[in-house]
Amino acid sequence: MSANNEEMVVTPWEVSGKIDYDKLVREFGTQPITPELLERIQKHTGTLHPQLQRRIFFSHRDLDWILQRYEAGEKFVLYTGRGPSGPVHIGHLVPWIFTKYLQDKFDAKLYFQMTDDEKFLYHDEFSLDEPQKWAYENALDLIALGFDPKKTRIIMDTKSMGTLYNLAIRIAKHMTFSTVRAVFGFQDSTNIGMLFYPAIQAVPAFLESELEGHNVPCLIPAAIDQDPYWRVTRDVAPKLGFYKPAQIHCRFVPGLGRGGKMSASMPETSIFTVDSPEVAAKKVMGAFTGGRATIEEQKRLGANPDICSVFAYDYFLFMDDKEIEDLRFNCLAGNIMCGECKQVLTERVKKFLVEHQEKREKAKDHFEEFLFNPKDI
Amino acid sequence: MSANNEEMVVTPWEVSGKIDYDKLVREFGTQPITPELLERIQKHTGTLHPQLQRRIFFSHRDLDWILQRYEAGEKFVLYTGRGPSGPVHIGHLVPWIFTKYLQDKFDAKLYFQMTDDEKFLYHDEFSLDEPQKWAYENALDLIALGFDPKKTRIIMDTKSMGTLYNLAIRIAKHMTFSTVRAVFGFQDSTNIGMLFYPAIQAVPAFLESELEGHNVPCLIPAAIDQDPYWRVTRDVAPKLGFYKPAQIHCRFVPGLGRGGKMSASMPETSIFTVDSPEVAAKKVMGAFTGGRATIEEQKRLGANPDICSVFAYDYFLFMDDKEIEDLRFNCLAGNIMCGECKQVLTERVKKFLVEHQEKREKAKDHFEEFLFNPKDI
Repeated sequence: MSANNEEMVVTPWEVSGKIDYDKLVREFGTQPITPELLERIQKHTGTLHPQLQRRIFFSHRDLDWILQRYEAGEKFVLYTGRGPSGPVHIGHLVPWIFTKYLQDKFDAKLYFQMTDDEKFLYHDEFSLDEPQKWAYENALDLIALGFDPKKTRIIMDTKSMGTLYNLAIRIAKHMTFSTVRAVFGFQDSTNIGMLFYPAIQAVPAFLESELEGHNVPCLIPAAIDQDPYWRVTRDVAPKLGFYKPAQIHCRFVPGLGRGGKMSASMPETSIFTVDSPEVAAKKVMGAFTGGRATIEEQKRLGANPDICSVFAYDYFLFMDDKEIEDLRFNCLAGNIMCGECKQVLTERVKKFLVEHQEKREKAKDHFEEFLFNPKDI
Repeated sequence: MSANNEEMVVTPWEVSGKIDYDKLVREFGTQPITPELLERIQKHTGTLHPQLQRRIFFSHRDLDWILQRYEAGEKFVLYTGRGPSGPVHIGHLVPWIFTKYLQDKFDAKLYFQMTDDEKFLYHDEFSLDEPQKWAYENALDLIALGFDPKKTRIIMDTKSMGTLYNLAIRIAKHMTFSTVRAVFGFQDSTNIGMLFYPAIQAVPAFLESELEGHNVPCLIPAAIDQDPYWRVTRDVAPKLGFYKPAQIHCRFVPGLGRGGKMSASMPETSIFTVDSPEVAAKKVMGAFTGGRATIEEQKRLGANPDICSVFAYDYFLFMDDKEIEDLRFNCLAGNIMCGECKQVLTERVKKFLVEHQEKREKAKDHFEEFLFNPKDI
């Protein structure tokens, strides 16, 4: 069965099949980001981030409301996170890069949740130290992106529960088994840690309000598969007197294979941030493209950038508007062959990895500065 | 409907009807405490506590095993607790007094869990500070009984989750919704905090082993309604490499009304440790007894100590063997009238309350010494 015919599945634990983003917006009941909304953002940011221009961030809930609060002088906090079950691939960095842009432009504090507890509870084979190790490793990637240590707090769930638990049970009191079964597909065989977990993922949405003693708006930039968590979080918010968190949703970064998002469970099609430049180069060279069977044919008919994973990488991460427009034109026109394109991407990936790995190494000395500790905020 | 015909209900949240302890032993699958076992205990304790002699503690799991470990030189820890949803009544003190006896005789460390989180999650009307307040108030009663601060650690759930949570999720990973629904009667409408909670109540059973880095036997003295928690805890133990906790179960202290256990939800039939001696005296004077309709009749036919709440109090808490035997004889023979009996109990209760309240007041200065903090153990 070809990837294109696969049924679309989008849950917090599985993303597969051909993703129809318009359908997701309809099914999840979110709002598309309109040109008017982009214009309104640009008033505050000066320039629009390519991820907004290119509709990589494409959907939202209450983004208009959060801008209205902001325009009325009320600052918001950002909240996003990561399930640390393995190394970070560069697809993971896409929304983090955008989150940093939001932090810079809106001078916003960020809560970043490392859900090591959830990953432990979900993966039968994990002992607790496994996701804890990845939480540390993944945090280095986050820090390497240049977040402001004064405005960024990384919450390690298994190390922060002394502070999170009391808010978590206040949330949990308003979530029943019926609800989490319906929203997350939990079953009778689901363990009770997983059943409780949605309350924990809701906590950072209210944490600033709780610590400050008054309501602070919260904006969650994240891939759209996490939406079920924010739906139940939004339902609980008014019952505890908190603002509902607003959201801005991004697409999944495709893997280097045919279809599907980049996934750590398919290492051959994922470029990890800790891959050596040589290993990454090999992965790019083996990538699925939209090329023709022969060079002759491709020169005559052109290739298809819309199904090409190499083009996707240039689009998501590496090329500016002019470059991407030229590439698209030349690809469709048959002016550029896939080998050439892979060569260009390889060089960019290598350069990125070398620089990122250097920053990642330096991040080890600053890890503690980023750790959540409510007493020093 | 008379109390005697009420159906027996025994769960962690409800104890009602006429309690048939033999049936409980059969239904729960526990073991009766045999004369041989009492003899074996006495070898170590010198004298048998009245609560053992009188079969107030009447049932167990693995008590023989824990004595065997003890005889082989392996010390055990004690674990019991309290759901702090209101003031402590003197019925609550019965197993605590016995626990102190065990601590003294076996030189055992005690973990005492205040389940303020569970009470918050269970009672719709509670805000979080309500059970937290009662946890403190109830701890004063515990401390007033003379526990050794060097060997006693009170765990306040909502203040200790930084230490408890990681062990709780390791336990939770082995408990499914099916299991907690079957054991605790949870439903689709149960909130997810309650669903997770059995993992938290299991934690102290393994805590010493976890902190010490090797298996330490654990004995849980508690009323038999808590047995479902220990059943699921025992099931999980081998999966995590821990010893199964042993248990020793006590009966419910009856209230001053007709039938049923003493319950904080029926304040008129419960003597609270903070009641003034006058209030307590009034409650005793209004107590249900086994007396006859008239004094003449009682002198002629005698009364029934077995259904008498005043006799029960003397039996559970206030009289020694000689006194209780005499009282039983004189009651049955019609030699003593209920008013007289109430007068005797009133004096004892008053004396107890005055002394207890004095110790309880002093406990305020020592509360911190008893708090669980794994770093100082």
